[in-house]
Amino acid sequence: MELSAVYHCPDKRFCYALNPGQFLIRIRAKSNDLRRVTLHTVDKYLPVSRMDTRTSQVMEKVTTDGIHDYFEAVISIDMVCLRYFFELADRHGKVCYYGNYQFYEHKISHIDNMFDCPQNLREEERFVIPQWAANQVVYQIFPTRFAASQPVPDRVWYQYPISPRADLKGDLRGILSRLPHLRELGVDVLYMTPIFQANSSHKYDTVDYFKVDPALGTEEDLRRLVDQAHAMGMRVILDAVFNHTSRDFFAFRDILEKGEQSRYLNWYYIQSFPIHARWGEKPTYKTFSYYGGMPKLNVGNPEVQEYLLGVIRYWMQTCRIDGWRLDVGDEVIHSFWKQFRKTVKAENPDALIVGEVWHYAGDFLEGDEWDTMMNYDFRAAVLGFVNGGISASRFVQRLSFLQGTVHTYVHPVLWNLIDSHDTARALHDCGENKARFRLAAAIQLLTTGMPMIYYGDEYGLSGAMDPDCRRGMVWKESLQDQEIFRWYQALIRVRKAYPVITQGKITALYTDDQKGIVAITKEQDGRKATCVFYNGDTPADCGIPQGQDLLTGQRFQGTLQPFQALVLA
Amino acid sequence: MELSAVYHCPDKRFCYALNPGQFLIRIRAKSNDLRRVTLHTVDKYLPVSRMDTRTSQVMEKVTTDGIHDYFEAVISIDMVCLRYFFELADRHGKVCYYGNYQFYEHKISHIDNMFDCPQNLREEERFVIPQWAANQVVYQIFPTRFAASQPVPDRVWYQYPISPRADLKGDLRGILSRLPHLRELGVDVLYMTPIFQANSSHKYDTVDYFKVDPALGTEEDLRRLVDQAHAMGMRVILDAVFNHTSRDFFAFRDILEKGEQSRYLNWYYIQSFPIHARWGEKPTYKTFSYYGGMPKLNVGNPEVQEYLLGVIRYWMQTCRIDGWRLDVGDEVIHSFWKQFRKTVKAENPDALIVGEVWHYAGDFLEGDEWDTMMNYDFRAAVLGFVNGGISASRFVQRLSFLQGTVHTYVHPVLWNLIDSHDTARALHDCGENKARFRLAAAIQLLTTGMPMIYYGDEYGLSGAMDPDCRRGMVWKESLQDQEIFRWYQALIRVRKAYPVITQGKITALYTDDQKGIVAITKEQDGRKATCVFYNGDTPADCGIPQGQDLLTGQRFQGTLQPFQALVLA
Repeated sequence: MELSAVYHCPDKRFCYALNPGQFLIRIRAKSNDLRRVTLHTVDKYLPVSRMDTRTSQVMEKVTTDGIHDYFEAVISIDMVCLRYFFELADRHGKVCYYGNYQFYEHKISHIDNMFDCPQNLREEERFVIPQWAANQVVYQIFPTRFAASQPVPDRVWYQYPISPRADLKGDLRGILSRLPHLRELGVDVLYMTPIFQANSSHKYDTVDYFKVDPALGTEEDLRRLVDQAHAMGMRVILDAVFNHTSRDFFAFRDILEKGEQSRYLNWYYIQSFPIHARWGEKPTYKTFSYYGGMPKLNVGNPEVQEYLLGVIRYWMQTCRIDGWRLDVGDEVIHSFWKQFRKTVKAENPDALIVGEVWHYAGDFLEGDEWDTMMNYDFRAAVLGFVNGGISASRFVQRLSFLQGTVHTYVHPVLWNLIDSHDTARALHDCGENKARFRLAAAIQLLTTGMPMIYYGDEYGLSGAMDPDCRRGMVWKESLQDQEIFRWYQALIRVRKAYPVITQGKITALYTDDQKGIVAITKEQDGRKATCVFYNGDTPADCGIPQGQDLLTGQRFQGTLQPFQALVLA
Repeated sequence: MELSAVYHCPDKRFCYALNPGQFLIRIRAKSNDLRRVTLHTVDKYLPVSRMDTRTSQVMEKVTTDGIHDYFEAVISIDMVCLRYFFELADRHGKVCYYGNYQFYEHKISHIDNMFDCPQNLREEERFVIPQWAANQVVYQIFPTRFAASQPVPDRVWYQYPISPRADLKGDLRGILSRLPHLRELGVDVLYMTPIFQANSSHKYDTVDYFKVDPALGTEEDLRRLVDQAHAMGMRVILDAVFNHTSRDFFAFRDILEKGEQSRYLNWYYIQSFPIHARWGEKPTYKTFSYYGGMPKLNVGNPEVQEYLLGVIRYWMQTCRIDGWRLDVGDEVIHSFWKQFRKTVKAENPDALIVGEVWHYAGDFLEGDEWDTMMNYDFRAAVLGFVNGGISASRFVQRLSFLQGTVHTYVHPVLWNLIDSHDTARALHDCGENKARFRLAAAIQLLTTGMPMIYYGDEYGLSGAMDPDCRRGMVWKESLQDQEIFRWYQALIRVRKAYPVITQGKITALYTDDQKGIVAITKEQDGRKATCVFYNGDTPADCGIPQGQDLLTGQRFQGTLQPFQALVLA
C-alpha cells in the first residue's frame, strides 16, 4: 500500500457540508492501489447514556485521474463534532487505518487519533451555488464584433486579416436583434465581454465603469437587451474588469496630471516617478500583462473596493443582469472577492459569479468567493484528444482531476470551453479539420458543466490567436456552415432532452487507447445513455453494442466513422 | 519515482509570503524517494524587452516525517505574478517536471503549465506573528489551585484525592505573591485558565464575562497582577471561553425563564422545548461535551459576536493583558476567529492568540485567525518516546510533521506541552518515574517553540486525569522536589543562554532506534549545540563525541546514563 499517496484534509474540498446535516467526505490514494476504503465515524461527545454512535460505510471510488483514485462518502449527522477515520484495504489484503494524519495497524478507537469535523464550522462554509445554472448552455459574445444595428459594408465587417483596432460597429442593439439566433441554437446564458466605456475594441481598458460604451449603445439599450433576453428565457452575464483600468480612467488620469500630489496614488501600484510606460521597458507602475496601457488597480484599498462594489450594485439594480464573469480573477486579492460575493448575492442570491483563471483555482472555489470558473483545462484536454495529442484514457483522466479536487457542486457549473476571445478558435486548432472540430463540440456539449460556445463556432468560424479569433460574426449565409449549425443544434437538443447525459452518474467507462475511443455510460432514475467519442481518422470496429444514435437518429451498427460522436440511449 | 506522493498547492502552507517580496515555496514527496528537487521560476508577464526572468534553485530538504520528505526554497520577487514548476530527480537518475498539477517528461516552457503565484494575493495573506513570543517559556496556572492570599489549612490545600468541587481558595493575589517563583524558574509568559465569574473550580462555565470571579479577586487585583508581571518582564495571557457559557449566563437564564419567548434564543442552539438536561440523556440544546452544564454559544449570531468582541476589548483596554488562549478553539466558527483576530490586533498588534485544539489545525493557522496552537501532539510524541512506546526515529518524525505542514513562522511559537489541566500529569504518565519525567521536561525545554510548563511540574507534582491533575500547588518544601526544580532552572537557563538550541538550523540528526538515542545538532551564526536524549534504562555507549554538558557542567565521556539528556556545545 502506498501510504505516501494517501491524502485527506478536512478542508472545504475534502470534507464539507453539502446541505445542513449532510456531509461529503473524500480521500485520495494512489491510482489502482486500494481495493476498498471504509469510512468509520463516531460522535466526538458520546452521550452519557453511552449510546453507540459509531457508523461505518464503504466509500465509493468516484473517479481517477491516472495518478490518484478519489473515494467519496456522503453521511448525515446531527452533533457538535464528528470524528472519523479511514480503513484502507489494498489489493493484497493489507489493511491499515488513517486518522489525524497518522497511519495505524489497528483499528482506531481513541477519538484523539481520528480526523475532526466540527459540524457548525463546516456548515458555515457551505457552498451555495445558484441552482438554475447547472448544465446551462452559455454563449460568449464579443460585442463590437457580433452584430451591428446599423448597416456595415461587408468589406468592413468581413475584413481578413482583422486588426485589433478594426471598428466593425457591433453594438447592443445588434445583439438584441440576434437574440432569436441564440434561442434557435438553444442557448440559455448570454455572456458579453466588457461593454463599459473604453478605448479599445475589446473594452478591457475601462474608462468609465458607470457608462455603457457609446459605440455600443446606451444604458437603456442594455436594459432592453437584458429584459428581452429574460423574456426569451435567457440570462445575461457581464464582464467585471476589476484587476486594471485604462490609463484614461479618472483616477489614473489624476495621477498622470498631478503626479505625487494626486489623491489617487493608492488606487494603483505606482513604483516611481515620473511615471511612464515606454515600449520595451517595464512601466513604472504595475500593470495587467507587461503593457503600460492597463494599470493594475489596488483593490486592497478600501476606497477602490467601495468604488467597485458600487459599480456592481449599480448594474445589478439598474439592469437586472444575472451575474458576472471576473476578468483576470486570479490576480485579484481574495479579500476583495469575498466582499464582492457578499455584495452580489445581497443584490441577487441567484446571480452567478464566474472567475477567469487558466489554472486550477481551488482557493477561489471554497464557497465564499466565486461560484465557478472558466475551465481552460477542458479546452486543453478536448483539443488534445481530438487532435490525437493525448490518448483516450489520458483524456478521461485529465477531466477527472477537477472532478476529484473541486467541490462536487461546482462540477455542473464549470464553464467548459474549447475556445474564447483569448485563444485561437477551436477549428483553427483542429487544423481547419471540421470533423475533428465537430467531435470537439460534441464532447463540449455532452459533458457535465456549462458549455461556453464562442460566437461563430456554431457556423464553423475559424481564426488564429487574437486578433484573428475576434473576426466579425458570420451573418452572411454563404459564410455559414449550416451543417455545423445543425450539429450544434442537435447536440444541444439531445443534451436537454436527455438530462441523464449531464446529470447522470457514470456507471461504465470504456477507453481504447489503441483505437482512440471513449465511451461513457451514465444512469439516472433508471434512464441510461452512452456517449461515444472516437478520434481516429479511419472507420473502426468496436465492441460497443449497437443502438439508436440520438444525435442523428440513425442506427449505430458497431463501426465508428472517423471522428464520430454518438449518443446511444 | 512515486508521483502519487508528490504534493504541492499554492496555498498558505505550501506557497506563502514570509515578508513583502520574499516567498517560501514548499513541496513534499515520498520519503527517501527524491535525490534533488529544483525550483524553476519565471515572471508570468515577460517584459516587452524579452529580458530573461528565469531562475532556478535547488530546494532544501528541511525535514521528513517518515512518510514524506519536505523540500523548501525561499525566493525574492517583485512582479505581478510568479510562475514556477519543480524538477524532480530520484535516486535512480529519473527526472520529471511538475507544474499545475501535471507531470511532464520534458522541462516546462509554457507558463500555462506552471504553478501560479500572484504576488499581491499571497502578500495580502501574510502571516504576522508577534516577534516577542518566539521561544518564550510559558507557565500555566489554574488559579483556584495555585496560591491563596489568605491562609489555608494544609488539610484543605493538600487534600488527596481532590474533588472537582474542592474549594482551595487560590486567588489572584496569591498568584501575585508568587510571581518571584516564576521569575526564579525563568518563565516569560503567565497563562491563567479562566478567571471570570463562574460556578466551578475550573471556571470554564462563565456566568459573567465582564467580572473577575469574586472568589479570585477583583478587576483591580487582575490589573495589579498584570502590571506587576509586566514590571518583572513577564506577559499575561487569559483564557477566552467563547464556545459555551454557564447555564447561569444572563442569556441562557433568560431562555430558562421565558422559554420560546426569550429574545436570546438565537444565542444558543436550542433544539426543542421544554429545554432540559437530564443525566443519561442528550440535552435539548447543543452543549460543550455531552453535559448540559455548558450550553454551546451560537457565535454565528452577530449579536453574540459583538458581545464577545466587547469582552475582548474590555479586558485588553482595562487590564492590558498580552493575549488570549482560545478554549475549544476548534469548535468555534472560522468567521468569528477572523473577526476576533482583527479586534485583538487592533487593540494590541503584539497580543498573542493561541488556540486550543488537540488535532492538526492548519486551517486556523493561515494568518487570519490564530497565531499558534496548543501542541498536544508534542505531548503524545514526547511521552511516547520517554516511555519507550515509540522509537527514536519515529519520535523525530512525529515532531517533523508539523514542521513540514504549518507555516514556518509558527514553529517557534507552538505551545509545546507535556501536560495540562486536561490531561494526566506527565510524571503520572511516566509511571511516577522521575528520571523519565526529567527527560520529558528536557525535550520540552530544548525544543524550538514555546514550552508550556503546567504549574507544579517544576516540583515534581503528579496526578492522574482531572480532577487529580488539578491539586493544590506544592508550596510546602517537604512536598517539593528541589532536584527537579533545579533541573527545570538549568534547562531554561541553558535554553536562554544558547539561542542556537531553539533558533539554530538542524545540521545533523542522529537516531539509534536500538538503543533509543536522539541527537540533534543545530547551528546558528557559527555556534553549534547538540542536544542528546536517551530513553534507555541502562547505561549505553554511543558514538556521540565527548564534550562538556551545558546542563550539568560535567564532561560527557561517551556513555549515556539512563534517561539522560545532554546539551553539548
